[in-house]
Amino acid sequence: MENHSTNTTQNLDQIQLELLKKRKSPVAFSDKEVSKEQLQQIFEATRWAASCFNEQPWRFVVATKAQGAHYQKVLNGINEHNQKWAQNAPVLMLTFAKKTFDMNGQPNMHSWHDLGLAVGNMSAQVTSMGLYLHQMAGIVRDNIQNTFDIPEGYEVVSAIALGYKLDFENVPEELKARESKERSRKPIKEIVFDKAWGESSF
Amino acid sequence: MENHSTNTTQNLDQIQLELLKKRKSPVAFSDKEVSKEQLQQIFEATRWAASCFNEQPWRFVVATKAQGAHYQKVLNGINEHNQKWAQNAPVLMLTFAKKTFDMNGQPNMHSWHDLGLAVGNMSAQVTSMGLYLHQMAGIVRDNIQNTFDIPEGYEVVSAIALGYKLDFENVPEELKARESKERSRKPIKEIVFDKAWGESSF
Repeated sequence: MENHSTNTTQNLDQIQLELLKKRKSPVAFSDKEVSKEQLQQIFEATRWAASCFNEQPWRFVVATKAQGAHYQKVLNGINEHNQKWAQNAPVLMLTFAKKTFDMNGQPNMHSWHDLGLAVGNMSAQVTSMGLYLHQMAGIVRDNIQNTFDIPEGYEVVSAIALGYKLDFENVPEELKARESKERSRKPIKEIVFDKAWGESSF
Repeated sequence: MENHSTNTTQNLDQIQLELLKKRKSPVAFSDKEVSKEQLQQIFEATRWAASCFNEQPWRFVVATKAQGAHYQKVLNGINEHNQKWAQNAPVLMLTFAKKTFDMNGQPNMHSWHDLGLAVGNMSAQVTSMGLYLHQMAGIVRDNIQNTFDIPEGYEVVSAIALGYKLDFENVPEELKARESKERSRKPIKEIVFDKAWGESSF
């Protein structure tokens, strides 16, 4: 045990990097359920994110497939294109940002950014649990506003599908191309400038 | 080795949660340097975040203390209140969001949110490396805009100080209260609703 825990500490940065790189947004979810305990752990990770003045402007409406009507309400807030695959996810969420600060009612320009920080935590946590999430900008804002009677001062930002992904051999034919598409990102030198803007030694 | 790697996999969710909960925003940084290789690893983690249409709207200007004038320029973009402690950090950054999509020039309402996702990755990675970051909303936008001649279409969002934190016994007296302040967050039931808005079984 001693050795294990020392080893783990030494390699923590490599483990973390592998997890963050492994993350992807599947379109083919398994019907395997995500338990209440797992959700608890996921939101425990989520809530410890940093935020401007510790406002914690993030809110989540979450639904599991077992909830039936409530799940359907959340699904109805997602656009048709995304509903096609998202309807198989065992968990669906809607994310919201609080527009003003509790302490003084002034606008919080960082609310969407800070929600992003919280979902960043969520994303790292679910990956460590063997789970995947897929965030969607394609939502039906009016539908969500009306269905959930969102109080003034909150904006819906995105939807999230959460679950286990299907093994590739079980992915439906029509989703196989999308699911196996190679992920790509800009190289570091295009996003990190250590001299003037646009100039990078990376 | 077999055992170690199995063990690690089993406990990955606990390791991840501990890292995310351990994260804090120090005000007392050690002068220990952060290497180019470490920065490389940090930005490698950062760039793999998800984003709307894979736009990757995040940009970073980064400066190490060893760079002298460039570091000073970044420091000058931070407000006086934050400069007092941030000037001890071995690395300073400014973060930016690209306002429109590359593919069609349309406004990207998720740009700040997606920058938050990327900084979420950054935050998890630095914690796994024994490093800490402290994000600041308190910046001087005009100064940054002018100093770095930021091209149209990008907005500065925040500054970040990065480094090792001082052991508590070495924290200057005037920062000790702030550095030892207990961190707090809303309970899950105040941010996660699994029934109607505001109603939670968590």
